[in-house]
Amino acid sequence: MIVELIAHTVITGWDPMRNAGWTQHADDDFDERVDTRLDHVDADYLAEFAGRLCYQSWKRPNPKTAANEGYLEHILESQHFSVLEHASATFYVAEVSRSLSHELVRHRHLSFSQMSQRYVDESQAQFITPPAIFERQGKAMQLYHTALVGQTDFYAALVKTLERDGLSRKEARQAARSVMPNATETRLVVTGNLRAWRDVITKRIAPAADAEIRQLAARLLLHLQRIAPSTFQDMAVPADLEVT
Amino acid sequence: MIVELIAHTVITGWDPMRNAGWTQHADDDFDERVDTRLDHVDADYLAEFAGRLCYQSWKRPNPKTAANEGYLEHILESQHFSVLEHASATFYVAEVSRSLSHELVRHRHLSFSQMSQRYVDESQAQFITPPAIFERQGKAMQLYHTALVGQTDFYAALVKTLERDGLSRKEARQAARSVMPNATETRLVVTGNLRAWRDVITKRIAPAADAEIRQLAARLLLHLQRIAPSTFQDMAVPADLEVT
Amino acid sequence: MIVELIAHTVITGWDPMRNAGWTQHADDDFDERVDTRLDHVDADYLAEFAGRLCYQSWKRPNPKTAANEGYLEHILESQHFSVLEHASATFYVAEVSRSLSHELVRHRHLSFSQMSQRYVDESQAQFITPPAIFERQGKAMQLYHTALVGQTDFYAALVKTLERDGLSRKEARQAARSVMPNATETRLVVTGNLRAWRDVITKRIAPAADAEIRQLAARLLLHLQRIAPSTFQDMAVPADLEVT
Amino acid sequence: MIVELIAHTVITGWDPMRNAGWTQHADDDFDERVDTRLDHVDADYLAEFAGRLCYQSWKRPNPKTAANEGYLEHILESQHFSVLEHASATFYVAEVSRSLSHELVRHRHLSFSQMSQRYVDESQAQFITPPAIFERQGKAMQLYHTALVGQTDFYAALVKTLERDGLSRKEARQAARSVMPNATETRLVVTGNLRAWRDVITKRIAPAADAEIRQLAARLLLHLQRIAPSTFQDMAVPADLEVT
Repeated sequence: MIVELIAHTVITGWDPMRNAGWTQHADDDFDERVDTRLDHVDADYLAEFAGRLCYQSWKRPNPKTAANEGYLEHILESQHFSVLEHASATFYVAEVSRSLSHELVRHRHLSFSQMSQRYVDESQAQFITPPAIFERQGKAMQLYHTALVGQTDFYAALVKTLERDGLSRKEARQAARSVMPNATETRLVVTGNLRAWRDVITKRIAPAADAEIRQLAARLLLHLQRIAPSTFQDMAVPADLEVT
Repeated sequence: MIVELIAHTVITGWDPMRNAGWTQHADDDFDERVDTRLDHVDADYLAEFAGRLCYQSWKRPNPKTAANEGYLEHILESQHFSVLEHASATFYVAEVSRSLSHELVRHRHLSFSQMSQRYVDESQAQFITPPAIFERQGKAMQLYHTALVGQTDFYAALVKTLERDGLSRKEARQAARSVMPNATETRLVVTGNLRAWRDVITKRIAPAADAEIRQLAARLLLHLQRIAPSTFQDMAVPADLEVT
Repeated sequence: MIVELIAHTVITGWDPMRNAGWTQHADDDFDERVDTRLDHVDADYLAEFAGRLCYQSWKRPNPKTAANEGYLEHILESQHFSVLEHASATFYVAEVSRSLSHELVRHRHLSFSQMSQRYVDESQAQFITPPAIFERQGKAMQLYHTALVGQTDFYAALVKTLERDGLSRKEARQAARSVMPNATETRLVVTGNLRAWRDVITKRIAPAADAEIRQLAARLLLHLQRIAPSTFQDMAVPADLEVT
Repeated sequence: MIVELIAHTVITGWDPMRNAGWTQHADDDFDERVDTRLDHVDADYLAEFAGRLCYQSWKRPNPKTAANEGYLEHILESQHFSVLEHASATFYVAEVSRSLSHELVRHRHLSFSQMSQRYVDESQAQFITPPAIFERQGKAMQLYHTALVGQTDFYAALVKTLERDGLSRKEARQAARSVMPNATETRLVVTGNLRAWRDVITKRIAPAADAEIRQLAARLLLHLQRIAPSTFQDMAVPADLEVT
């Protein structure tokens, strides 16, 4: 499974924030951040700015919410989640199965670009073994292999036959994909704002979720905690999930 | 393919509409409708009411927009699509493939309840032959059958083996589904408002769309034109699509 | 405040449900419902059908979830909220302020048609007194009245002046509305599915919400509990909120 | 009117893109971009990467779509808009009226954090004169001023009276805001992905849109064309709109 953070929201204009009244920030490294344009926690600052704007609460009399981490802890407790929508993160996800992608695309607050089985040739496609089978090996693995061996050959033969019958390449592939299994690898570019990612990860990292998608959720969380530690301060990869 | 309309929006309170100023309606059957509670075109009237409310245009001086069909023709031309969001329609869809459902659930304005491959036993699952293969029969059909014969047996054997290995039934099924093909039948309850359905059908009935989902789009359109003829007055099933 | 339920989802095709395996329903009045087409709790049954479809759990061995109320209690507890999206309800809302509507339209899962201040003449507009002022009367009411007296006259004079200056009627009204207060009455048609309504009502009926919108939320809840008692079984109008 | 771009999506991981097969880019400055991490057109490259991933079309045999601008021209023509959802842009908007914000928040694909009239003291609020009145001055301006003079004093007096009557500060403000006019200034942080921004700007820059919001749309477009010139290549500020 490949899960790479390829893009995310970066603050490129601090002046409006300063002018709005957001000065003398309590965080020790705030001014340094503004000057050096470190980008690794911009998402957290953007959420704080949005939250303070609502109430014009630029002063920070309460030490518990004066710094960014405490401020967002309060945001999370009071469920003022909308301020987490301003920053987004985009991932390249590959070496996952179409079982997984069929579940993932149900999350309607995410944006997807997915490798098309109607357009792309699947005759060299890889299969993604489910964790439960991969971990056990033995007879399950044997059955799994026997079930899938030769499926890409059937696919290729079907494409060839249908093209010979007069179908276009796209029409032939879209019909032939019918024999490809759920295990077939797919690749996606997926984007979500941080509120959406919190929701997706909460649901998909839970013990009741599918084993493969839990692995994805854990990887997403680790990436997101690097660029938005305050926003994800209350979440953790469950102990039973080993991310390798 | 089974596509049944099972529920839709019905007007149950005409009084607020009358009181808002919506009297002396130009349609001949308007009063009769109000009295007899015919439900087959409530969606169209609801859209008209919502549109007239925005402009408080209860009088109908212009004969072109005086009756419902003309009024909604104008709504469609001026792209005032939001008034089409008030009515919705719910379909039971079955005997469609998981290729189709993976495409369908990408429409984020629809609401879905889908048969779960993680929970439901697939050992008796049916396969939905793609139209291109079904129509051609011959060698393509032969290849297709050979590719899929026995897949449900592998699935059943995998479930049994994994359960013997200590997995729960759900865990076994969610791993074993990996060998099931895209052709596997799925069933859904799908709901959308009429603006969303217009968008979905426009995209999925187009010649460039997948052959199976075009069939679905055509069936949806025919159902929707019965309950909302004015709302779908500008759409038609393409001549090359035979709905049986 | 006027809050009228004008339309909602009604089941119009029970056959697919029966054919799917949903027979011998535990509710005493189920068959009677199917036959008589009572519509008052169709939303609840639609949610149950969608839920049972996911797991193909047509049999009802567990007495706690055998009848509709218990089934949806379980749905709510397990947060399987998506099945509540299939039924929707449409309200006509009037005699509410534009303060309220500015808050209400923030709910992005609802659909709105709102009386346009750019198109509609506001010279006879009514003002909606905030509950806190209305209840107290006295000096607050006096100040409120003095602040608003004559505002519609200024509005009318502005429209006339701008039209004389060569603006179109729409342009004149859209500029003149600038002097109209938040208290100005507005009217809307609002639609949401039941999952969305649960979310909206939970947030807007809470003690921290605005006094006027809490009144709206309470009225919405009472209407919805009539058409979907099982879906809203866990919600209640707070004791401090008197709905008249 | 203040419209400042404060944050947007920046590509921070080019490796997955290179590894996916996206090499030897036709744009002259591609490698330089990757090395120097210029951020001003990352949104355009992200859309191209997402588009090419769908079809695994990493090679660029067609000179018309080989470079980014031509590729996205093709995306726009074929309405493959979903790839424009991966990049987003966040604006700080101030010195706009609540007439404008009430319209703006209707765009349900945007994310908003808005200055709250329930929490923030409005006794020093500024009023935003509608363009039509501002440009004409004369009698319209006089009427406008007379209509609004003293409204903040009434507001302040109402707050004081209600607090004296025992209301909390928030309750007093939320009732007193009822007398504040549509012209009252508001401030927002607004985020949207580029597909959403295209839709919002198209609707709000059109001649039929409100004069103030057209100014906002024009400013948004100019900002967005700087960070995503290919994505907005087909849009322009209308000749009649002067952005100052």
